[in-house]
Amino acid sequence: MCRWLTYAGRPIYLDSLIFEPENSLIAQSLHARKTSVTTNGDGFGIGWYGGRQVPGIYRDILPAWNDPNLKSLAHQVEACLFFAHVRASTGTSTSRANCHPFGLGRWLFMHNGQIGGYDRLRRRLEALLPDELYRHRHGTTDSELFFLLLFVHGLEEDPPAAIRKTIRVVEAAMAETGATDPFRMTAALSDGIRIYAVRHSTDDKPPTMFWGGPTTALTVVSEPLDGHLGHWAEVEPERLLFASAGVTPKVEALL
Amino acid sequence: MCRWLTYAGRPIYLDSLIFEPENSLIAQSLHARKTSVTTNGDGFGIGWYGGRQVPGIYRDILPAWNDPNLKSLAHQVEACLFFAHVRASTGTSTSRANCHPFGLGRWLFMHNGQIGGYDRLRRRLEALLPDELYRHRHGTTDSELFFLLLFVHGLEEDPPAAIRKTIRVVEAAMAETGATDPFRMTAALSDGIRIYAVRHSTDDKPPTMFWGGPTTALTVVSEPLDGHLGHWAEVEPERLLFASAGVTPKVEALL
Amino acid sequence: MCRWLTYAGRPIYLDSLIFEPENSLIAQSLHARKTSVTTNGDGFGIGWYGGRQVPGIYRDILPAWNDPNLKSLAHQVEACLFFAHVRASTGTSTSRANCHPFGLGRWLFMHNGQIGGYDRLRRRLEALLPDELYRHRHGTTDSELFFLLLFVHGLEEDPPAAIRKTIRVVEAAMAETGATDPFRMTAALSDGIRIYAVRHSTDDKPPTMFWGGPTTALTVVSEPLDGHLGHWAEVEPERLLFASAGVTPKVEALL
Amino acid sequence: MCRWLTYAGRPIYLDSLIFEPENSLIAQSLHARKTSVTTNGDGFGIGWYGGRQVPGIYRDILPAWNDPNLKSLAHQVEACLFFAHVRASTGTSTSRANCHPFGLGRWLFMHNGQIGGYDRLRRRLEALLPDELYRHRHGTTDSELFFLLLFVHGLEEDPPAAIRKTIRVVEAAMAETGATDPFRMTAALSDGIRIYAVRHSTDDKPPTMFWGGPTTALTVVSEPLDGHLGHWAEVEPERLLFASAGVTPKVEALL
Repeated sequence: MCRWLTYAGRPIYLDSLIFEPENSLIAQSLHARKTSVTTNGDGFGIGWYGGRQVPGIYRDILPAWNDPNLKSLAHQVEACLFFAHVRASTGTSTSRANCHPFGLGRWLFMHNGQIGGYDRLRRRLEALLPDELYRHRHGTTDSELFFLLLFVHGLEEDPPAAIRKTIRVVEAAMAETGATDPFRMTAALSDGIRIYAVRHSTDDKPPTMFWGGPTTALTVVSEPLDGHLGHWAEVEPERLLFASAGVTPKVEALL
Repeated sequence: MCRWLTYAGRPIYLDSLIFEPENSLIAQSLHARKTSVTTNGDGFGIGWYGGRQVPGIYRDILPAWNDPNLKSLAHQVEACLFFAHVRASTGTSTSRANCHPFGLGRWLFMHNGQIGGYDRLRRRLEALLPDELYRHRHGTTDSELFFLLLFVHGLEEDPPAAIRKTIRVVEAAMAETGATDPFRMTAALSDGIRIYAVRHSTDDKPPTMFWGGPTTALTVVSEPLDGHLGHWAEVEPERLLFASAGVTPKVEALL
Repeated sequence: MCRWLTYAGRPIYLDSLIFEPENSLIAQSLHARKTSVTTNGDGFGIGWYGGRQVPGIYRDILPAWNDPNLKSLAHQVEACLFFAHVRASTGTSTSRANCHPFGLGRWLFMHNGQIGGYDRLRRRLEALLPDELYRHRHGTTDSELFFLLLFVHGLEEDPPAAIRKTIRVVEAAMAETGATDPFRMTAALSDGIRIYAVRHSTDDKPPTMFWGGPTTALTVVSEPLDGHLGHWAEVEPERLLFASAGVTPKVEALL
Repeated sequence: MCRWLTYAGRPIYLDSLIFEPENSLIAQSLHARKTSVTTNGDGFGIGWYGGRQVPGIYRDILPAWNDPNLKSLAHQVEACLFFAHVRASTGTSTSRANCHPFGLGRWLFMHNGQIGGYDRLRRRLEALLPDELYRHRHGTTDSELFFLLLFVHGLEEDPPAAIRKTIRVVEAAMAETGATDPFRMTAALSDGIRIYAVRHSTDDKPPTMFWGGPTTALTVVSEPLDGHLGHWAEVEPERLLFASAGVTPKVEALL
C-alpha cells in the first residue's frame, strides 16, 4: 500500500505539504497510520504543473525520507497543482519506471492498491493497448498499465467515463481469469486543471481517501496530514471525486 | 553497442579477466576500440555459476568503472564459468532489469546489438511468450525478449536450434512490420556447462566477436582483452560457436 | 538504530541467516522489534571472508528488503564468518561509504548506536588519525571513525585493549566538549578468525545484543532471529564478547 | 577533468543550455573535446537560484546522459542564474556528496581540476576549517574542501580576495608537503547575483575556460557549446572573471 497526496490551489512550495505537516507524506513513508503496510520505502515521486506543455516529474528508488534532492526540489518548486507519492511495492521491482506518478502528455496519474491476480492478467490487459500507447509502457506495474488503459477508454474526451470503463474492463478480465484477490484502488488523475480521484474496491476493504486540509486550498490524500480530523472529509467507498482549485469538490457514485 | 566476455576453464577469480587485462572489460567500458559507440556507461552485470541451482547475478546501473561493489565481488568470486557485460543503451531505459546478463533457471544470456524496428516489433514478439514466461519479463529490452523467446523455441531441448529458430522468428516479424534497421547481434548463452555464442547481422556490419585468450582456458569476447592478436581468433560473421571448458570450441554456420 | 548479525561456524550460505529466519535481518530492516527506530532502510551491507587476503564487501543505499543483488549474492556466497548490517541513519547521509560493515585490510567492523555530540567531536577525533589512516576515511560517520581509531589504539596487537582504549578516548573527548547525548554502541569486529562484540552505553539504555542461534554455530545479533528465546543469550551491558567458530563465547567486563 | 557551465541573464529554461546546444553539457559528458579525459560519467549536478533563500541543488551519481529526472527538471526549471556540472572523478568516490555544485547558504561552487598531492594535503587543509564549517564537509573531494576554505578566507566580505587567498594557502600547503603534481582549476562561484570564475594552474596546462555564448546573456563554460568560435572568448590562464547578468564580464589578473 502506498501513500499519496495531490494539491490544487494558490501556488505553494511543495515542501509545505510534503515535509512540514505533522503527518506529512515523508512521515507517512516511515510510519503510515491507516494501512497495514506501514513502511513505504520502495521509491517515491512528485509531479507538478509548471510553465511547460508537460508536467515535471521527479522519481527515485530511494526511500523518500532519505533523498536530499527531493528535499531541495520540494523546497524550490512552487506549483498550483501537484502530486506526491511514496511507494510500498506489491511485488513488482523497484525501478524509477515503476515509481508514481506516471506521466503522459499533460496527464499525471498515481495509485495506491493493486489489481488482484495481476500476474495472470497483465498480458491480457497489455494486449488492449495499441502500439502507440505501448511505446509508453516503461515499467511493469499494474498502476502504469491502468493509466495507459485510460487513454484507450477515452481519457482525453471524458475522464470519468474512461475511469469507469477501465475499471469494468479490468474486472471483466479478472473474472475471465478467475482472479480471487481483490482489485483495490485509490487513485488520482489530473490534466493540470482538474483532479479526478477515485476510491474503489471489489471487496469491503477499499484503501482510505480523504479531502480537505488545513487551508481553503484543496488537498486529496490517502490519509490525513494531521490529527485535526475536522479538517478532513473521508471520501466514501465507490466514489469519484472531481476537484479543481477554489471550489468544493463534487463527489458522486463511481459505478 | 555493449561489450561482453564469457569464460570457461579452471576456477579463476573474476577480476583476473574483468579488471586486470590491458584492454579489460572495465577499460572497454570507458574506451571500447572496435565499435563506434565507445562509452559503455549505462550499467553492467556479471553472472557466475557457483554451488547453487541457479547462477549468481549482480547488475547495477552505475558505470562499471565506478562501482566498488563490483570491484570487491570480482575480487572474491571464483568461478569456472562466468559472464560479464558493460552496457551502452540503444534506447531503453537504464534500470537494473535492463542490464545483462539475464538469468532464468540455470540459463544466462547476454547480448550486444539490437533488433531493428524494435519499437514496433515489441508487442508482436512479446505476444509469442506464454504467460509463465511473460512473468519473467522484468525489463523492456529487446535482449531480454530474445532470451525469453529462446525458451519458446526449445532452449531446454536443443539450444542451437532454439537460437536459429528465434532469429528466424524475429526476422519474419521484422519483415512483416517493414523494419528497415538491421538486426545485429553477438550474444552468449550458457547453462553452466556449455557456452553458445553467435555472431549475426542482417546487414554487413555484424558486431565483432573473438575467442581465445592468453591461457588455455576459453574466453569469448566482443573485443580482445589485449593487443596480442595471436591470442585471439575472430569468429566469422554468421557463425555459431559451441564451447566448454578444456576443449577447442566448435564453430559452424549459423543459419 | 541499526540491526546487525555476525556468524562464525561451518560454511553456510549467507541467505540462510539473512533472509530465511522468521525474524531475519531483512525482516528486521522493515520491522525491528527491540528498538524505537523500527525502519532500517538507509542502506545495508554484508562482509565475508573468502579465499582472498581481504574480505568481500557489498554495500548499497537501497533498503535491504528491495535489493535483488543482495538476494542473489546472499544465495551464492558461502562463508565461515560473515557480517550483515541494515542501517537507520542517525544523521549522516545515505551513501555507500557510510554503510556498514567497514573494511580495512583483514578487518571488518559494524556498529549500532551513536557517539553523542558527534558533530562537535568529529574533528577532534579525526585529528587523532595519522595520515595513512585518514586516507581510508571514505565517509562521514561516527562508526567509521571509531573503526579507524581502533587502529590508532593498537588493534593489530591487542583488539580488546584497542576497543577499551578507543571507548575511553571517545568519552574523554565527549567530556571535554560537554557532550550531553549518550555514547551507545553494540559493535562487532573481526579479523576473519575471531569476533569481538561489545555492548556499551554511557546511559542506562545500551542497545540490545544477543548470542546463540538455532544451531551450534555461533551467531551474535542485535536482536534474536526467531522467537525461541531459549536459543538466545542476552549479553549484559558493559560486556565484551570474544567468539570464534566452534567454541562457547567468552564474555567479560568491558571496562 | 570535469565539464561545467554557468549562466546569468534573462530567465531561461535550463535545458536550453544543458541539453539543446550542439556541444551541450550532456554531449560533453559523453565526448568532451578539449580535454584528455573524454568521458564525464561519474555523476553530475545542477544548481539554480529561485525564489527561496538558498539555491536549489540536484545531484546524482548516474551519468548525466542517462537521467530522466535531470531531463524533466532541466525542462521545467527556469532561472536567471544557474550552474551545471558533469563529473569525471580524479580519484575520490562517486557519491552524491562528491558531485558538484556544492552549496552553502546563498553560495554555489563548482570546479574542474585537481589539487596536486591532495591525499597528503587533505588533513592539513581540513584542519583550517572551524567546526561550524566542518559540519558542512559532507563529502571527501578537494573541490568541496576548496569551497569551504573560501569561507575561512573571507568569502562573505570579498570573494575575489577569498579566492586569491585560498589559492595561496593551498599552494603553500603543497609546497610544505612537497607535492609534485600540479594544482589546476577552472572554477565558478556565485552568490545568486554575481559569478566569479577563475582559470589557474601551477603548471602550463590550465584547463580551458570560455565566456560568451550565442545570445547576449552571459555563459561561462569549460568548453564552447557550439562550433561557432566567434561566439566564445577564451579566458586567458591566470585570470579572474567577474560577471553578472547584462554586463560584459570584467577579466583581471588572478594573482
